[in-house]
Amino acid sequence: MSSEQKFGAGIWHFATYVDRYATDGYGAPRTVVDAIELAGQVPDLSVVDLNYPFFGGDFTREDIKAALDAQGLEVIGITPEIYTRVFAKGSFTNPDPGVRELAHELITEAADVVRYFGADYVKLWPGQDGWDYPFQVDHGALWKNSIDGVGRLAAENPDLKFVIEYKPREPRVHMSYSSVARTLLGIEKIGLPNVGILLDFGHALFGGESPADSAQLAIDHGRLFGMDVNDNLRGWDDDMVAGTVHPIELFEFFYTLEKNNWKGVWQLDQFPFREDSVAAATSAIDFLKAVQRALAKLDFAAVQEAQDNHDAITALRLAQQALFTSY
Amino acid sequence: MSSEQKFGAGIWHFATYVDRYATDGYGAPRTVVDAIELAGQVPDLSVVDLNYPFFGGDFTREDIKAALDAQGLEVIGITPEIYTRVFAKGSFTNPDPGVRELAHELITEAADVVRYFGADYVKLWPGQDGWDYPFQVDHGALWKNSIDGVGRLAAENPDLKFVIEYKPREPRVHMSYSSVARTLLGIEKIGLPNVGILLDFGHALFGGESPADSAQLAIDHGRLFGMDVNDNLRGWDDDMVAGTVHPIELFEFFYTLEKNNWKGVWQLDQFPFREDSVAAATSAIDFLKAVQRALAKLDFAAVQEAQDNHDAITALRLAQQALFTSY
Amino acid sequence: MSSEQKFGAGIWHFATYVDRYATDGYGAPRTVVDAIELAGQVPDLSVVDLNYPFFGGDFTREDIKAALDAQGLEVIGITPEIYTRVFAKGSFTNPDPGVRELAHELITEAADVVRYFGADYVKLWPGQDGWDYPFQVDHGALWKNSIDGVGRLAAENPDLKFVIEYKPREPRVHMSYSSVARTLLGIEKIGLPNVGILLDFGHALFGGESPADSAQLAIDHGRLFGMDVNDNLRGWDDDMVAGTVHPIELFEFFYTLEKNNWKGVWQLDQFPFREDSVAAATSAIDFLKAVQRALAKLDFAAVQEAQDNHDAITALRLAQQALFTSY
Amino acid sequence: MSSEQKFGAGIWHFATYVDRYATDGYGAPRTVVDAIELAGQVPDLSVVDLNYPFFGGDFTREDIKAALDAQGLEVIGITPEIYTRVFAKGSFTNPDPGVRELAHELITEAADVVRYFGADYVKLWPGQDGWDYPFQVDHGALWKNSIDGVGRLAAENPDLKFVIEYKPREPRVHMSYSSVARTLLGIEKIGLPNVGILLDFGHALFGGESPADSAQLAIDHGRLFGMDVNDNLRGWDDDMVAGTVHPIELFEFFYTLEKNNWKGVWQLDQFPFREDSVAAATSAIDFLKAVQRALAKLDFAAVQEAQDNHDAITALRLAQQALFTSY
Repeated sequence: MSSEQKFGAGIWHFATYVDRYATDGYGAPRTVVDAIELAGQVPDLSVVDLNYPFFGGDFTREDIKAALDAQGLEVIGITPEIYTRVFAKGSFTNPDPGVRELAHELITEAADVVRYFGADYVKLWPGQDGWDYPFQVDHGALWKNSIDGVGRLAAENPDLKFVIEYKPREPRVHMSYSSVARTLLGIEKIGLPNVGILLDFGHALFGGESPADSAQLAIDHGRLFGMDVNDNLRGWDDDMVAGTVHPIELFEFFYTLEKNNWKGVWQLDQFPFREDSVAAATSAIDFLKAVQRALAKLDFAAVQEAQDNHDAITALRLAQQALFTSY
Repeated sequence: MSSEQKFGAGIWHFATYVDRYATDGYGAPRTVVDAIELAGQVPDLSVVDLNYPFFGGDFTREDIKAALDAQGLEVIGITPEIYTRVFAKGSFTNPDPGVRELAHELITEAADVVRYFGADYVKLWPGQDGWDYPFQVDHGALWKNSIDGVGRLAAENPDLKFVIEYKPREPRVHMSYSSVARTLLGIEKIGLPNVGILLDFGHALFGGESPADSAQLAIDHGRLFGMDVNDNLRGWDDDMVAGTVHPIELFEFFYTLEKNNWKGVWQLDQFPFREDSVAAATSAIDFLKAVQRALAKLDFAAVQEAQDNHDAITALRLAQQALFTSY
Repeated sequence: MSSEQKFGAGIWHFATYVDRYATDGYGAPRTVVDAIELAGQVPDLSVVDLNYPFFGGDFTREDIKAALDAQGLEVIGITPEIYTRVFAKGSFTNPDPGVRELAHELITEAADVVRYFGADYVKLWPGQDGWDYPFQVDHGALWKNSIDGVGRLAAENPDLKFVIEYKPREPRVHMSYSSVARTLLGIEKIGLPNVGILLDFGHALFGGESPADSAQLAIDHGRLFGMDVNDNLRGWDDDMVAGTVHPIELFEFFYTLEKNNWKGVWQLDQFPFREDSVAAATSAIDFLKAVQRALAKLDFAAVQEAQDNHDAITALRLAQQALFTSY
Repeated sequence: MSSEQKFGAGIWHFATYVDRYATDGYGAPRTVVDAIELAGQVPDLSVVDLNYPFFGGDFTREDIKAALDAQGLEVIGITPEIYTRVFAKGSFTNPDPGVRELAHELITEAADVVRYFGADYVKLWPGQDGWDYPFQVDHGALWKNSIDGVGRLAAENPDLKFVIEYKPREPRVHMSYSSVARTLLGIEKIGLPNVGILLDFGHALFGGESPADSAQLAIDHGRLFGMDVNDNLRGWDDDMVAGTVHPIELFEFFYTLEKNNWKGVWQLDQFPFREDSVAAATSAIDFLKAVQRALAKLDFAAVQEAQDNHDAITALRLAQQALFTSY
């Protein structure tokens, strides 16, 4: 954490969205290039995660690079879209081996895009991998496919990092990579150094985790390769603006990263369905900058001493004093 | 409950869906006419609820009537789509009075469609009416608009029934008509005889209610105008196949309707994202027919006696004996 | 809200607790007099709510009054213990009419204690009134008893106020007075002026409500007779220290009270199982005083304007600026 | 699964309970010997899990053995009470090393009791190990203590099995051993063969898991050492009677055990706060015997084929046909 801290966002933050009700979308469609232009309007934003294929048009890598350069944006990761129609019943765990192969091919292409942009990782978000109903799947076989699919990619691309973004559910009723511990268990089974976790603050909250604990666990396993933040009401992945519901737990999350000397981009994964996306990102980053100031002010030794006694009242008072005077 | 019990479904049961991930949809788009043809393949299904405007094409009322007649289907209700893009910030509660007027006009048109089909009611599902963030809205003003909007329609169309389908949330983080009690409170304030509740079994579960209690409360207020069923894991409106997760509470729900001599169509509100929609509806109705047989077998007097003592063990044993021998 | 704002607490805040695991208690037992002495150590605390009967010994009203006077404490309400063993199957809704009568007698005694102390209200927290299992109760009869029991008390004691503290559940799996709307619906049915709501911030959160909205609704019905605060993770009534998890929604709650010019004591309902109870109360009140300063700083007109547009980003920025600079 | 299937229960099923409201208990206190006598009245119950120390009096092992023999009951496990007052801030993770040592000593004693009774395992339920507030603990240190404490016991007692019963929360707001995956991750780190999981069906449900998946995962890691069942509403550990809310998922759970040829006692972990405990256990076992009959009837090959296609409708129809005709 320092003045040169980088801030980033998933490029979908600047797209428009559909859901099962507003099938005509919460706004006119935007191309990835439109989204990049909006991202460029957010002060302090310098890094993006890109969906692949590039949405909204027939763009080459070079087109995208030009658009990014025009906004002074770099690429941190590529997110292959392994959750669209063809993958509705799963990517790594699809019952059809042909579709599993399609997923492998798409991710392999995305790996090349990572190389092209000099990005940090391929981000795997296997949201369609899981189940909906009791009795629907053979749980042992499903989990084996989840692991084997990622393991094969990591083995074939030893020069690249793969990060898994877990989530309890949505769009499946149960997602296969559902929690920090489940994902680490899978990663340990894969046993390769280039597979890690992209920890989404809101997914941890949604899963009943304490995000600071999730971060510590992933760090202690040497697997915290990336992270992003947002907020929600703990019952769903609302992807709301960071800091609007759980500012203290967000502060604890960054405190944990800082204490472990974890370096990396502070990313946003927000879905501003009905909000101006530039304002939503700017507002979140303004809060994150308050968090930075609060971290600079926080007495880490005093917090540690309170924690050694499990003294919540003292620890929280220190945290509140730092955070609630730093906006 | 009897051999002539009618079964129905929302016509969207037979559509395909999009969500924020599978933006290309869980299957090729279908028109309402395609959906009607699929509905016609479900044995025992004789009634549908139709979205308005008619989706997927430029259909007249007469086109739809012909398609329904060909399948032997009747219309129970019309659901105006007050949750699409233009209504993203609300229909009755939109901050823009012009959009509120648009909602009024669309629902007024839907009322005429109800008259045309001789249907039972206009169904209001104001899913975009609510809020997402703390501090976002003036709660008093929002609730007043929720009530006034429905009240105006009911006053202008005294020959028709309007039913409100409440839900805790989705797509808004908080929906204005969120629970059975909140909705009844609003209806009592409106004070007109032609406004009632369409009770969705899954919405009640999702809201932490016991659906049987919700039904009893609505009945005791004279406001249970319709109902539909499905299932979920209590944490979201999963719209899964009825009877696959909570068969006992579903049985208690129908037990309550029967005990009160409530007559009406047993409808489905399911979203079979990845399932064959005809199979999903058929399977649900097969379970509902098992529920019918179980009700015929259940000793109502013995259940009542156990309930008079709050004796859960005895009451449940009676219920299990009836239901788990009736499939 | 002003310099003379009074702060209060349920006296149980200063007791010790048992649960189903630590059956020997989270600390040595304390009498109500011990608890009053601890309450007296909290700066700015001037008002308490007392359980009745007085716990931990054979105390007269005069004993308690002397103990309170010694600490400079006043009584805001009396909470009859209608949730102990004899009431395990309910107080107002117990299947045994003799037990319902016992509840009535105990509350009637509590009413006299209210008169003795010149307190504001009898607080009804019917935690054992509800059900656990499907099919266990006749929901119509249960709700009728819930209403009749309160109505009888209110009719017999027109000189006193009765406040109902609703909660979704615990110790019952479903509580009869479960939500703000359900409680208002019951109160409207009772139809007497001296029955209102004691709104617990954490119970509203736990029930999926937005506490600010709950407060507005109760105010608009003329029924917000009291309130208390605490915090939780929205999935249970954790009764944690106020402001430690949801500071922004707590701020919105007080903003709503202030906007409506609601006057009353700001009370705590916390259960510091493993914390020092004086420190836990002091820490919460320190946060509430920060909330006071933030309210004084907040631009109410600008918030209202943002809310008129449902502009969450602007409204939240104003709120964050006020609150996060006021600790 | 067969005619000689053994059924068991935690002996606390036959105790009475206190909670933070009914501090005088949901019934008169019972000794462990009283509880054993009640357990003896349940047809088909032949195995119990005993708390240690023996509750309600000063009983020797021999006293207990005599009481068990009189009822024809065997002991499957011993549950040391590492969650009472002295352990309120944790057993393995208590901030005070002296208390951690006390926990070690108590569990070591319990190990001897296991040997005395020829039981299967020491059951560890570290319900006080965890945290309540953000910033309260050093998550890395806490987890290390969780693992080290269990590892030390397992190393010192290689002749015995230790089973960890995980749960998301209660009495702590977050429990350290919170999920099946987290617990397996810890067990793998410990790296000893005599540490496994006691899988509680309700804890898995409460944690958002599919219990059948949890069982499969534990089996695939060679760590499913025991299990028990009950039911709840997924939002809390209600410890209700098995089969009263989630009969289909319970059936899937036993289907998974049977498919993997897992042998072991089918235990109950229920807390019948307001019910007759003999009736509650008998009713649950009657349902489990229906599950046995349904398993005998189920076409495993057809289910497997449906699962190979992720065909929920077909798989569930097979399951419903078997279960809902077997009561």
